[in-house]
Amino acid sequence: MKPLYLLAGAAALLTPLALATATWATSEATPENASPIYGVTIPDGYRKWELIAPALEAEPLDELRAVVGNQIAVDAYRAGTLPFPDGTVLVKLAWKQKQSPEFASATVPGAATTVQVMVKDSKKYAATGGWGFGRFIDGKPVDKAQHETCWACHEALVKDHDYVFTRYAP
Amino acid sequence: MKPLYLLAGAAALLTPLALATATWATSEATPENASPIYGVTIPDGYRKWELIAPALEAEPLDELRAVVGNQIAVDAYRAGTLPFPDGTVLVKLAWKQKQSPEFASATVPGAATTVQVMVKDSKKYAATGGWGFGRFIDGKPVDKAQHETCWACHEALVKDHDYVFTRYAP
Repeated sequence: MKPLYLLAGAAALLTPLALATATWATSEATPENASPIYGVTIPDGYRKWELIAPALEAEPLDELRAVVGNQIAVDAYRAGTLPFPDGTVLVKLAWKQKQSPEFASATVPGAATTVQVMVKDSKKYAATGGWGFGRFIDGKPVDKAQHETCWACHEALVKDHDYVFTRYAP
Repeated sequence: MKPLYLLAGAAALLTPLALATATWATSEATPENASPIYGVTIPDGYRKWELIAPALEAEPLDELRAVVGNQIAVDAYRAGTLPFPDGTVLVKLAWKQKQSPEFASATVPGAATTVQVMVKDSKKYAATGGWGFGRFIDGKPVDKAQHETCWACHEALVKDHDYVFTRYAP
């Protein structure tokens, strides 16, 4: 009976994962497009997702940022649902700060820098609060060493908000 | 024949306005919810619109901002269409800058301040480059004097971009 048991166990595990994956996965994860450790990829169509909040990152990064979320994320934010449900995906876009050439008091987006992704899958990422992380430059994941820093910081600083820094901007 | 002529003229004017209006109008414009001079109202559902770009406004306003656009606006930005087509609506959300209580180098949205709206209707707003303007605090339009400043500044500074400051953030 062991093979059958294993098969049933595998099916039980795969079904929720497949459902969650369907809400955010893009092309198949490969070493070229998926983050080390987590296997997170840049979700298709994220640039059309709803704004959660803008932010500003001081020097040395000196960036303007905007976090957008998929529908599961937006619904959770609006309802105040914590922890975020499986299938939540957040994407942070970032650009170098640039003085507006047309308006003295305005700072606007310059060159795009990184795209950062958080994916909630409480089973797959059980060891990191249910979150998988991905940091991308020019569409390519950065190295393993950078990805090793994600969880420690989120865990230390925003445990009370399900390890997510960004709040919904009203 | 004069009454008939006038009626035909009115119909010709109303048809494109009605089409354009359908893409952005919310409840009927009244002195309570519509901007002075322009009669612009806050469009329904704008908070779900796609991000065009975030921005930062220095002191004394000291704001984080994000401009979102309706589908006509987004399509025009992506295609590089200038002037923006009738029916384009842009909404700028603004919040006071606030030091993140959780991350030393981050500035995040504090209290919401204004919502500012630009509506393209080349006939209705022919005298102001085809744009109608609305500036709102707590959902209520600010006074006529403030609305008198919109066009002069947009006209003086961003004529080459159809009087729109914001560029699409890649």
